[in-house]
Amino acid sequence: MRVACIELGGTKVVLAAGSGPEDLTDLVRIPTTDPASTMSAIIAALERVKPFDAIGIASFGPLCLDTADPDGLRITDTPKPGWSQTKLLAPLARQFGVPVYLDTDVNGAALGEGRWGAAQGLRDFAYITVGTGIGVGLVVNGMPVHGLMHPEAGHLLVRRDPVKDPYPGHCPFHSDCLEGLACGPAIADRLGRSAEELSDDHPVWSLVGDYIGQLCVSLLLVTSPRRIILGGGVGQRHGVRLAAAQAMHAYLAGYVQHPALGAGFIVPPALENRAGVLGAMVIAQNSNMREHHGA
Amino acid sequence: MRVACIELGGTKVVLAAGSGPEDLTDLVRIPTTDPASTMSAIIAALERVKPFDAIGIASFGPLCLDTADPDGLRITDTPKPGWSQTKLLAPLARQFGVPVYLDTDVNGAALGEGRWGAAQGLRDFAYITVGTGIGVGLVVNGMPVHGLMHPEAGHLLVRRDPVKDPYPGHCPFHSDCLEGLACGPAIADRLGRSAEELSDDHPVWSLVGDYIGQLCVSLLLVTSPRRIILGGGVGQRHGVRLAAAQAMHAYLAGYVQHPALGAGFIVPPALENRAGVLGAMVIAQNSNMREHHGA
Repeated sequence: MRVACIELGGTKVVLAAGSGPEDLTDLVRIPTTDPASTMSAIIAALERVKPFDAIGIASFGPLCLDTADPDGLRITDTPKPGWSQTKLLAPLARQFGVPVYLDTDVNGAALGEGRWGAAQGLRDFAYITVGTGIGVGLVVNGMPVHGLMHPEAGHLLVRRDPVKDPYPGHCPFHSDCLEGLACGPAIADRLGRSAEELSDDHPVWSLVGDYIGQLCVSLLLVTSPRRIILGGGVGQRHGVRLAAAQAMHAYLAGYVQHPALGAGFIVPPALENRAGVLGAMVIAQNSNMREHHGA
Repeated sequence: MRVACIELGGTKVVLAAGSGPEDLTDLVRIPTTDPASTMSAIIAALERVKPFDAIGIASFGPLCLDTADPDGLRITDTPKPGWSQTKLLAPLARQFGVPVYLDTDVNGAALGEGRWGAAQGLRDFAYITVGTGIGVGLVVNGMPVHGLMHPEAGHLLVRRDPVKDPYPGHCPFHSDCLEGLACGPAIADRLGRSAEELSDDHPVWSLVGDYIGQLCVSLLLVTSPRRIILGGGVGQRHGVRLAAAQAMHAYLAGYVQHPALGAGFIVPPALENRAGVLGAMVIAQNSNMREHHGA
């Protein structure tokens, strides 16, 4: 099924149309400005890739994904100026007369990796991105997890040893939650220089890997994924994945034993910079989601 | 659909047959001894409640629930003498010629509460039991969570303040994980007397509530349940639920805001001592599970 794919990020929107990775129009990038101008630019870009049978949006959040919510599917309260309570579906459904489906950017990335990438054939897996923030997309029984809102596992409480890591964290809500300690800006704030500048052998990567390993433990103990994909600028730094796997096993201390928990359990993503639009493609095509997301 | 229900616990088995809470034969209790004798007693008890169209088992674990596993559905490695690698389905399927379905005791309790108890009408919720151990059953998108194994959230790593709680924990794997700090035996080990003997105003209940609140935070941030049912001998002690709710909000620190997170978010179970067999009934009746559990 040929669908339109929208990856709505905080700084840019990436659009494409197609039916699969081998049939995908050239990606179009537009800046994310205010909601009205951005929506106009999205509509103009989609007019040029018609026809399509559905539209999928993988968006930054937080989102309301609850079809029973009287205010409808939308971006809820975000610090991004002008975007709080923005409804994304109605203007597109009206313009193009096709159903529009919405999910989080990380659930989209997870779904894309599940269909064409690093989690093919698995019904239960997690996608972690560690970059300017920490996000987690979750697929359980073959379906993305929404629930009351959607996973926000970047803010899990982790254990910090103040002797090993005296940095108090930078999360405005929790100080030293996972994101407050291990995302790119936390690394920069801790060390006084950008994470991108650090060499691969900098000791902060094993510290970051320890915290991500604690996230992997929590995911494993709560939803028992068969694989964890670790992406993002920080998550893909040399040594971070290995340190996360070592820390995960150290914290588990032999409690959960399964052959799948070996070297192939925590893996890098496979879809690279097309993960966002391919995720939006699955959001549009995935018939499992229809019952929740009909527009 | 009339089904046979087996709640297989570590010390006793409870059996019944019926099609719902209003149509349930008298519960039969038999002791859990060795697997062969216990299975013979189960078969003898079920012969007396024939006919039925399926059998559901809600069992102590850990379980393998992976239909692709070459060794089949079974109890895996348990400290309970004689029970490691016990297959429960084949003898019953052979004897009665009906499909047999298996899930964990806590997933069963969650499913029962979802159909007839404290989580009716919800597709996403969690069931916690805090007693001699800590178990979590999870329903996501209307289906019980299995994954690689099944949730083992009792062993989540929590934060312990050694000034407030110098007790080092009693978990043989992790010392001060959640179960190592907050289950009944941990309370008894910490205080030198049984948790049952403690008065409702004993300060340990707010300490236990703090740890359970951390579990609720982790569940909320990972799978975003719409409600959390808190059961078990410790979980239902006066004040523990309230302390858990207060701690959950204190740790969230305003990060996740939703009207559903008020007084009705953490609730007691509704099915009381029939939760086990009614859970086994849903395991047998739940057509969602058929694709995973056909025997």
